[in-house]
Amino acid sequence: MRTVIECVPNISEGRDPARVREIADAVRAAPGVRLLDVSSDPAHNRSVLTFVGDAAAVRAGVSALFDAAIPRIDLTRHSGEHPRMGAVDVVPLIPIRGATVADCVALSRELGAAIAARHAIPVFLYEDSAASEARRNLAEIRKGEFEGFGEKMKDPLWAPDFGPAGPHPTAGAVAVGARAPLIAYNINLGTKDLRVADAIAKAIRHIGGGFRFVKAMGVDLADRGQVQVSINMTNFRKTPLHRVFECVKSEAARYGVPIVGSEIVGLAPADALLMAAGHYLRLENLSSEQILELRLLEEEETAP
Amino acid sequence: MRTVIECVPNISEGRDPARVREIADAVRAAPGVRLLDVSSDPAHNRSVLTFVGDAAAVRAGVSALFDAAIPRIDLTRHSGEHPRMGAVDVVPLIPIRGATVADCVALSRELGAAIAARHAIPVFLYEDSAASEARRNLAEIRKGEFEGFGEKMKDPLWAPDFGPAGPHPTAGAVAVGARAPLIAYNINLGTKDLRVADAIAKAIRHIGGGFRFVKAMGVDLADRGQVQVSINMTNFRKTPLHRVFECVKSEAARYGVPIVGSEIVGLAPADALLMAAGHYLRLENLSSEQILELRLLEEEETAP
Repeated sequence: MRTVIECVPNISEGRDPARVREIADAVRAAPGVRLLDVSSDPAHNRSVLTFVGDAAAVRAGVSALFDAAIPRIDLTRHSGEHPRMGAVDVVPLIPIRGATVADCVALSRELGAAIAARHAIPVFLYEDSAASEARRNLAEIRKGEFEGFGEKMKDPLWAPDFGPAGPHPTAGAVAVGARAPLIAYNINLGTKDLRVADAIAKAIRHIGGGFRFVKAMGVDLADRGQVQVSINMTNFRKTPLHRVFECVKSEAARYGVPIVGSEIVGLAPADALLMAAGHYLRLENLSSEQILELRLLEEEETAP
Repeated sequence: MRTVIECVPNISEGRDPARVREIADAVRAAPGVRLLDVSSDPAHNRSVLTFVGDAAAVRAGVSALFDAAIPRIDLTRHSGEHPRMGAVDVVPLIPIRGATVADCVALSRELGAAIAARHAIPVFLYEDSAASEARRNLAEIRKGEFEGFGEKMKDPLWAPDFGPAGPHPTAGAVAVGARAPLIAYNINLGTKDLRVADAIAKAIRHIGGGFRFVKAMGVDLADRGQVQVSINMTNFRKTPLHRVFECVKSEAARYGVPIVGSEIVGLAPADALLMAAGHYLRLENLSSEQILELRLLEEEETAP
């Protein structure tokens, strides 16, 4: 089976398209890398690159990313709405096919050591790569941001996992870590009453007693005359889309409200949808091997 | 978007594994071809090859197939349970991604002309490539089989679309044509009463007044103590899996019988399952572009 790991680095440049393009081109040129998307947000002054490849390609892509980004982004001159601690702020590694979370954790350690050695930037392992629970949450690590990071790192509790004891003068610090694929999944309700969406979001999200891998909030879709339960599915294998959909349907029915539709925002792994098809069609043995296009991806490696 | 056409030629050799392997190896070696499966049936004395590629790859694969099969298969010495008229009996062309039925019809004409010119084999266009309704059905074309084909072709009604007015002395004749992907889809019922499966098969199949692109029959699964509605979905885009599943569920409920499960036999295009997920999750705008692995297939062509 061919290995597909997704890497979604966030860089602290979202206003200068030429500079973003130079950095993206460097990543695209790395051997084995497929750059799927580049999104810049000028208000956040931040860009998100999405690329995929096997472990070797991700190593090459991340290396090219730092080589291109560090000389081009100076955090002493950076401002934007989104909190950030690094020129390359965060490097998430996501197993898609033929790789496990453990594989991505191992890769994150390898990358962390390499980045620290080459660029003298402190590296913090987060999410599934975190050495302790306190290091799991990216928002906790990032607290203090670039401007406060020198002070923050004086506390031995915030010694980095790799690299120097203080931030890089222009590139700050970076978080690297493995996490499950995140799916942005929204369910639209046939009512204008935001309280219904809020109540359902509360019911299904982990923090309120709901599903373990669900974050959710109610959103007003005024232009559609509807409200939305806006959901982040943080582990679709353990909390699948169809289970959340059916739960929202049941909760909405309690208010006499129908589900009008749903949407996936951005990319999702094929398995997330195949699991839903398997559930509703009661498929007894559906395997990725049976999906023609996925077979095509797998065969590539073994083809002569 | 990268083009993926599936080609599923049937050859009249299923007993000599060495000979089948030589023919399969020739196809595998054709540039751009991905050979996904080779299945031989000794009783039928017939093998089915499944390969995919873009139009150029399919051209190369079919050319390699004939070059390898014609000298190796002599129908004057062939016997088997499955009706056949040619050494290469039939060459179906199936659009999977980035190609239409019309593209495959054009390709079938091109292949037909090339085969006739190179091997002096009469070629009959069938299914969506057929010049007339009478030529659509493969079983009609094949009637008379190899042994009766000289006689059959004396009738001007059975003049070939390409090639000589009589069959090739050892390789007979071949049918080439475009068709929609076929999905073998079975639904298992929680009863031992075969009459229920038979009645439901009758209700859903085209010939009995059911869905246009459904062939179905009841099958006894004695070892499971269940019966099965065994279905051939001949065009899943126009008659989708979920619609048939829901119809079977409703018909079964009329007998107080539950659906225990279902299964897809062999390969299916991703869209067949994505359509089911989209239906049940009420997805408003699901596109293949959003499926990470399918994006990967598409990007290949444009990547530097």
